[in-house]
Amino acid sequence: MTDARLFGLGLGPGDPDFMTVRARRILERADRLAHFCKRGRRGNARAIADAVVGADPAREIAMVYPVTDEIPAEHPDYAAALRPFYEEMTARLAGEVEAGRTVAVLCEGDPFFYGSFMHLWRRLKDRLPIEVVPAVTGMSGAWTQAGAPITWGDDVLTVIPATLPAEDLLRRFRSTDALVVMKLGRHLAKVRAALAAAGLLERAIYVERATMPGQRIVPLPELPCEEPAPYFSMVIVPGQGRRA
Amino acid sequence: MTDARLFGLGLGPGDPDFMTVRARRILERADRLAHFCKRGRRGNARAIADAVVGADPAREIAMVYPVTDEIPAEHPDYAAALRPFYEEMTARLAGEVEAGRTVAVLCEGDPFFYGSFMHLWRRLKDRLPIEVVPAVTGMSGAWTQAGAPITWGDDVLTVIPATLPAEDLLRRFRSTDALVVMKLGRHLAKVRAALAAAGLLERAIYVERATMPGQRIVPLPELPCEEPAPYFSMVIVPGQGRRA
Repeated sequence: MTDARLFGLGLGPGDPDFMTVRARRILERADRLAHFCKRGRRGNARAIADAVVGADPAREIAMVYPVTDEIPAEHPDYAAALRPFYEEMTARLAGEVEAGRTVAVLCEGDPFFYGSFMHLWRRLKDRLPIEVVPAVTGMSGAWTQAGAPITWGDDVLTVIPATLPAEDLLRRFRSTDALVVMKLGRHLAKVRAALAAAGLLERAIYVERATMPGQRIVPLPELPCEEPAPYFSMVIVPGQGRRA
Repeated sequence: MTDARLFGLGLGPGDPDFMTVRARRILERADRLAHFCKRGRRGNARAIADAVVGADPAREIAMVYPVTDEIPAEHPDYAAALRPFYEEMTARLAGEVEAGRTVAVLCEGDPFFYGSFMHLWRRLKDRLPIEVVPAVTGMSGAWTQAGAPITWGDDVLTVIPATLPAEDLLRRFRSTDALVVMKLGRHLAKVRAALAAAGLLERAIYVERATMPGQRIVPLPELPCEEPAPYFSMVIVPGQGRRA
């Protein structure tokens, strides 16, 4: 299709119609499709690609995380487990590209926005030709499906991982106009309490699997507090800035 | 193509290959294409659509702003001038949809992220069927083209309009990990000074027309401070969070 290179291929929020034209073309034509996944599971990005590419073992490279949520990401053991994994995957993908192939690393959302691909990119950027294909973020999918324009006029938007300590969440919730809380996981009760303390709970919307089958959108005050929250979930608080 | 409705059609950051598959299809088939523009100029979103749709006067509805940057957006005269304009456009577009047509309002970037479309949407959402098509944001285009992954690990991202007072900028610059400064306009010198005071200037990147012809990416400390900065420009400061 093109000269050998590595693609960081953003596939968007989930609905295959929300892939970019370029992402779709690369997905159809790349020699190798690499995707991150948990042991024994299909990867999220690979599942998004299903509508475009069927199973094709000869083309696929599954990059199986040695750990995911068994260890908190901020624990030193987490990085200690992931580093050799990224090193191994780096060598594997570099070998493919150096053999003349195009290799697309499938990414849910946008590759440069909290993406695992970034850990491969920083190891390979000075060694291989790399093209990153930007994508619709999961959060754009979420606010669109929720019917909730996120920023108006001079609104400030804060995007924050729920993994931060409660006092950090509260401080930042108090000083923003609009909010997206990512990585809910086991932190939903903490996020809800901080939103309540900041006076934002009534405006908060819980969005799960935006644009995908099983999409669920619920005002956060009405959500039964199930934890852990699933992977494709976030909380948004739309801004209330200047209307014209 | 489909039942009559209004589309908030996100076209992405500029490169037509970064439109979504759905946006491209709607662009090709909608009965009417509406776009915002300054008097005597083509609209930015309309220019992005050029690669897909040629000039077609029977299909096009130009929505000419009565004011743009002659009046600061925070001045009461600005809203006073825009309100009747939005009311008029609302009536015009509603008339088209009520006559059975599909009408796509072309939006640069993502429609629900600081989009002018939102001012039509809030007037029409309870009156007409509306579908909003999310898109790659201009900021995703910027950090991708700059080769600058924006958020790592537990980084907090702040998106902030340069129009805010210097002390607000400084306070928020000091309390974030990653930063996107939008709406530079006449505020570039103020933004640069606040970044310097917050110790972020050395990491700041100026990005203009990301993904478009004329793209320009310059470390901010090296940028001659020309004002006003053009419409498609922003400053980004990538986060430095956890690497694995």
